[in-house]
Amino acid sequence: MDVGIVGGSGYGGAELLRLLAAHPFAKVRVVAARTAAGGHVHEVFPHLRGAPGADLILVEPDPDALAACDVVLLATPHAASLALAPALVAAGARVVDLSGAYRLDAATFSDWYGDEHTAADLAPAVYGLPELYRDQIAAAALVANPGCYPTAALLAMAPLAGHVDPASVVISGLSGTSGAGKGLRDDLHASHAMGNAAAYGAPKHRHTPEIERIWGRLAGLDSAPPLTFTPHLVPMSRGQVVTVVATLGPDADGAAVEDSYVAAYTDEPFVHVLPPGSWPSSGHTVGGNAAHIGVAFDPRTRRVTASCALDNLVKGAAGQALQNANLLCGVEETAGLTAAGVYP
Amino acid sequence: MDVGIVGGSGYGGAELLRLLAAHPFAKVRVVAARTAAGGHVHEVFPHLRGAPGADLILVEPDPDALAACDVVLLATPHAASLALAPALVAAGARVVDLSGAYRLDAATFSDWYGDEHTAADLAPAVYGLPELYRDQIAAAALVANPGCYPTAALLAMAPLAGHVDPASVVISGLSGTSGAGKGLRDDLHASHAMGNAAAYGAPKHRHTPEIERIWGRLAGLDSAPPLTFTPHLVPMSRGQVVTVVATLGPDADGAAVEDSYVAAYTDEPFVHVLPPGSWPSSGHTVGGNAAHIGVAFDPRTRRVTASCALDNLVKGAAGQALQNANLLCGVEETAGLTAAGVYP
Amino acid sequence: MDVGIVGGSGYGGAELLRLLAAHPFAKVRVVAARTAAGGHVHEVFPHLRGAPGADLILVEPDPDALAACDVVLLATPHAASLALAPALVAAGARVVDLSGAYRLDAATFSDWYGDEHTAADLAPAVYGLPELYRDQIAAAALVANPGCYPTAALLAMAPLAGHVDPASVVISGLSGTSGAGKGLRDDLHASHAMGNAAAYGAPKHRHTPEIERIWGRLAGLDSAPPLTFTPHLVPMSRGQVVTVVATLGPDADGAAVEDSYVAAYTDEPFVHVLPPGSWPSSGHTVGGNAAHIGVAFDPRTRRVTASCALDNLVKGAAGQALQNANLLCGVEETAGLTAAGVYP
Amino acid sequence: MDVGIVGGSGYGGAELLRLLAAHPFAKVRVVAARTAAGGHVHEVFPHLRGAPGADLILVEPDPDALAACDVVLLATPHAASLALAPALVAAGARVVDLSGAYRLDAATFSDWYGDEHTAADLAPAVYGLPELYRDQIAAAALVANPGCYPTAALLAMAPLAGHVDPASVVISGLSGTSGAGKGLRDDLHASHAMGNAAAYGAPKHRHTPEIERIWGRLAGLDSAPPLTFTPHLVPMSRGQVVTVVATLGPDADGAAVEDSYVAAYTDEPFVHVLPPGSWPSSGHTVGGNAAHIGVAFDPRTRRVTASCALDNLVKGAAGQALQNANLLCGVEETAGLTAAGVYP
Repeated sequence: MDVGIVGGSGYGGAELLRLLAAHPFAKVRVVAARTAAGGHVHEVFPHLRGAPGADLILVEPDPDALAACDVVLLATPHAASLALAPALVAAGARVVDLSGAYRLDAATFSDWYGDEHTAADLAPAVYGLPELYRDQIAAAALVANPGCYPTAALLAMAPLAGHVDPASVVISGLSGTSGAGKGLRDDLHASHAMGNAAAYGAPKHRHTPEIERIWGRLAGLDSAPPLTFTPHLVPMSRGQVVTVVATLGPDADGAAVEDSYVAAYTDEPFVHVLPPGSWPSSGHTVGGNAAHIGVAFDPRTRRVTASCALDNLVKGAAGQALQNANLLCGVEETAGLTAAGVYP
Repeated sequence: MDVGIVGGSGYGGAELLRLLAAHPFAKVRVVAARTAAGGHVHEVFPHLRGAPGADLILVEPDPDALAACDVVLLATPHAASLALAPALVAAGARVVDLSGAYRLDAATFSDWYGDEHTAADLAPAVYGLPELYRDQIAAAALVANPGCYPTAALLAMAPLAGHVDPASVVISGLSGTSGAGKGLRDDLHASHAMGNAAAYGAPKHRHTPEIERIWGRLAGLDSAPPLTFTPHLVPMSRGQVVTVVATLGPDADGAAVEDSYVAAYTDEPFVHVLPPGSWPSSGHTVGGNAAHIGVAFDPRTRRVTASCALDNLVKGAAGQALQNANLLCGVEETAGLTAAGVYP
Repeated sequence: MDVGIVGGSGYGGAELLRLLAAHPFAKVRVVAARTAAGGHVHEVFPHLRGAPGADLILVEPDPDALAACDVVLLATPHAASLALAPALVAAGARVVDLSGAYRLDAATFSDWYGDEHTAADLAPAVYGLPELYRDQIAAAALVANPGCYPTAALLAMAPLAGHVDPASVVISGLSGTSGAGKGLRDDLHASHAMGNAAAYGAPKHRHTPEIERIWGRLAGLDSAPPLTFTPHLVPMSRGQVVTVVATLGPDADGAAVEDSYVAAYTDEPFVHVLPPGSWPSSGHTVGGNAAHIGVAFDPRTRRVTASCALDNLVKGAAGQALQNANLLCGVEETAGLTAAGVYP
Repeated sequence: MDVGIVGGSGYGGAELLRLLAAHPFAKVRVVAARTAAGGHVHEVFPHLRGAPGADLILVEPDPDALAACDVVLLATPHAASLALAPALVAAGARVVDLSGAYRLDAATFSDWYGDEHTAADLAPAVYGLPELYRDQIAAAALVANPGCYPTAALLAMAPLAGHVDPASVVISGLSGTSGAGKGLRDDLHASHAMGNAAAYGAPKHRHTPEIERIWGRLAGLDSAPPLTFTPHLVPMSRGQVVTVVATLGPDADGAAVEDSYVAAYTDEPFVHVLPPGSWPSSGHTVGGNAAHIGVAFDPRTRRVTASCALDNLVKGAAGQALQNANLLCGVEETAGLTAAGVYP
């Protein structure tokens, strides 16, 4: 399994390199990155010193070299993904895009991202949440790797479909700072982020329509219901908790809803439903590809609360991308992804 | 203004001592604490070394000595407050209780706290949220100082009364670890709390009925509507963010709701409504008595999101208690509370 | 006491404004800042909302307006201080400079800062460590406010003078990120600083010659001995710990050295020597002007270890500057500085 | 390679299980733990859910079952290791002990640990720092796995032997809270540890004589020179930085000393010497077995500063124990230890 990576100087690229270093069947052939081209991987990311791949040299993106790989992973901003993916797909490459470029239809993309979509025929691509769309992913040319919040939200929401009023969903998210990427920003200054928590981006965070689109499909609706999603920045580097509240439908049974989580995920290697009364801790998932879910029904309000914790850079980004790449290439879905969380 | 404190060895007591050290008219006459009686304040709390009051000696609680003060502040667990307050009130003392003992009627208290209420005739006491109940507080014998989450939630919710469906409220809370007190607990071990976030206590956190009771009154309902409240522990010592989502009533106007926040708080010394598009940061309030609020209406969902940030130990506990004590004693409400937040 | 501040948009300026808001005799007349001129203080620093001074408007630095104040506090980079101070001093203003511009003689400054010193006749100015140079400060036109590390190091070292081999001193420092200022930098990105610790700058940190110069004077040497100082960045916003190790001279007595700390600081309002066996915690000093010191003699090595903790932005910068301003203006040295640390 | 673990409910045991889950040749046969016997590994450590070994059941320690393993890893307090190791060794087991029980001779152990040594004939065991004692480890029955600070200190010091005055060494250490273990303690309460740094334990930390003993051997001295070691607790869960300062001998050359680091470690898989001018970051090593080292010579003081960063639970404990176990069992030394650090 020959792998090409574009965007090797960002967190997504670094995390792909870290995970691929432990992959039993994969070999990184190309690591492309505009900003750090010419340097070694271990110069950009000293934490990779000594790991397989640390001595690779970052190169300028070259579509031909990339298309010769079995799979290309785009860990690029959405503008770069819009520019790169069409040629790669046309050249027969199989591509997993970690940006938001191909998760929405072109019109919705333009509304929420403020940019024109220059590859509308590819959008939306197959949505790369393996727990929901394993078969379509395996057959796809282009996979849109989900956003970190949508991964956690949708894993928490999927078992609710059919049990709750679809429009009643209210979502609260907590994320560590690495979710915002490596770019320097005043609110990401350590002196400002440490000891501090705040909501941000609401009610217009770009992950909102992505959650709505898939939720609408899960709920069997013709059009996606508008939902409320409020993300918060909390003082840790990695990790994410998304808590979903929804109101049970008139005929639904609270205990049955709790049971549906166990049923939905019992055979999933990366999704663990916690015992009743437990809520998941993001810290338990740091560095690994697991998502932990807790759920509780409240008879007082007839609402269900479900909370999902994961590592935003692994199951919320690079780990899931590798899971998708494994599916695309027909290798064991868990290959390279079996490492446990690093805790405490 | 002679002040007595009970519970001087916990965070609430320490914070009262810190704030009272800067109070222009107050003098701490008694600091009682069962666990550390006999020691100096600065031995229990080295951060108070050099401050006025640091050389006070902690004593066993003595109702007579306490009742001789102008106001007694109980920073005790609810069981101790249940035991202490009746005698103090009977002796003519004016009391601010920081625990949950007198915030609910006796029956609701028993349901949520699991203990019998042994002073049912005093419960609920006047609810000590000065922005809502300033006049009643000034005339009270016993004031129930609000919980930290309810303070933030109700400041965020109060301007919504009359505009939203009262039962539609969904609340998400984020708190630093100091909210859980000084007791040792596995989830409060630094190695477990740092780099970690998780929901907890939902849907049965004890602050839920407290929010419901006051919200029902604000909304003009005969009985309190059941609400959904999900608190989360985030890796910081101090600070709290509570984010409220509610659905507008059929005749309500989103812009008018946003305006109502400015109108509600324009004369309040401790509540600051941020400019549109801003969300409040808990870090901006650390150490001070301010609450910062942001609000946004989303026409897509017809929901309002309001978020309030404050310091759980100050406006969420000891600062508010001092604000109540000032009202009880007829001194300037802001006395001892004008220090700004310590940031960054 | 009319105060002018230059550099009001940085951390030093913000901290001066926060402390001056609680000062009983001071009034801020001018807040100058190049980068944020025209805005209100509370727009640049939302944590000051509601505090006295929060509604001041930042202006371009105007030497005449500044010189009309009783004291001018320069919270500016050293280049700006080099440019501003001579005119202010010439105009009769009394100035406290928080930068490194006037802490060294001009030649040593050039060696370590890499810039020419354009006001050599003013350098070094009176060194603004009140615990050592109280009288000179009171009589000075220009006071060089010490660096944060030198403040902690010299408070830990001063009682050692005469007891230890002056050249034997080895210093290790730990600082929170706010010590590096508000500018964006890759190593200050929250995702990089949290969960991380590292040495930096050694052996050429600019605070090294500053410690050496004062230590040489304390030790009664003609020339400053070269010392080893290794600072480390640790994941917290505020706070500093400096630990000093020195070898006892042949005739010195270890117990006497420990006693000398108590003797040196017993009347100092801001320096607290901890009981034997205790080491100071930076967290106990956050937000306040205290320095906490612990000391231990090790007969095995005949070395003394002394550790000093303080808030780098208060006793290590703005608080000490205000202490110096009080001395310059003949008001109570502790005015505006009596607030205790904010802990936990 | 059949592995037995004792102490499976502490951080050392958890980390052994995490690393062994990724080991290509090892199989955990027994996980013993007194406090959690009867439970599943994933109940004690939810971060291991889904990993190989997560469904193992913790059992009471049984020497016979343990002795049947190829190697036994004792992640126990020193008292338990004193009790367990003799029988295991007598039964022919090969043992790696992670405690301090066998790192010193019995008399020195008693002096520093305050307990009698009940297995004096086994103390000191072969010291398990593979970079120094690879061959002796491979042939040993009992290996004393080094402490976390000594590992970092000695890796930073070893290349200095022969170049510096052995008695001149002054060591400063920084550690995250996980180094203190899982037990609840007031200074490890998250509210106290976050935003806080402090020295502790100096000058009598138990790792001091361990560093001295090995340093004496490296320096070719008959008796270990007394050194000064000051550890500090810093607010992060994992990670350690140890900075060593030593004075060059009269004939030594500073540049040569810097070069000696590269020479010493060029073939070591886990020790990386950073380019000149760089200091190592603990964050780059989290979760992996790497140690990063930076070094600089200061001609002004003729002192060398060397700083080593590592993960206290991996290279400082469980990772190194596994490295030793691999050597004992004759498998590839790096097996199970190739995962890179988890950063940011």
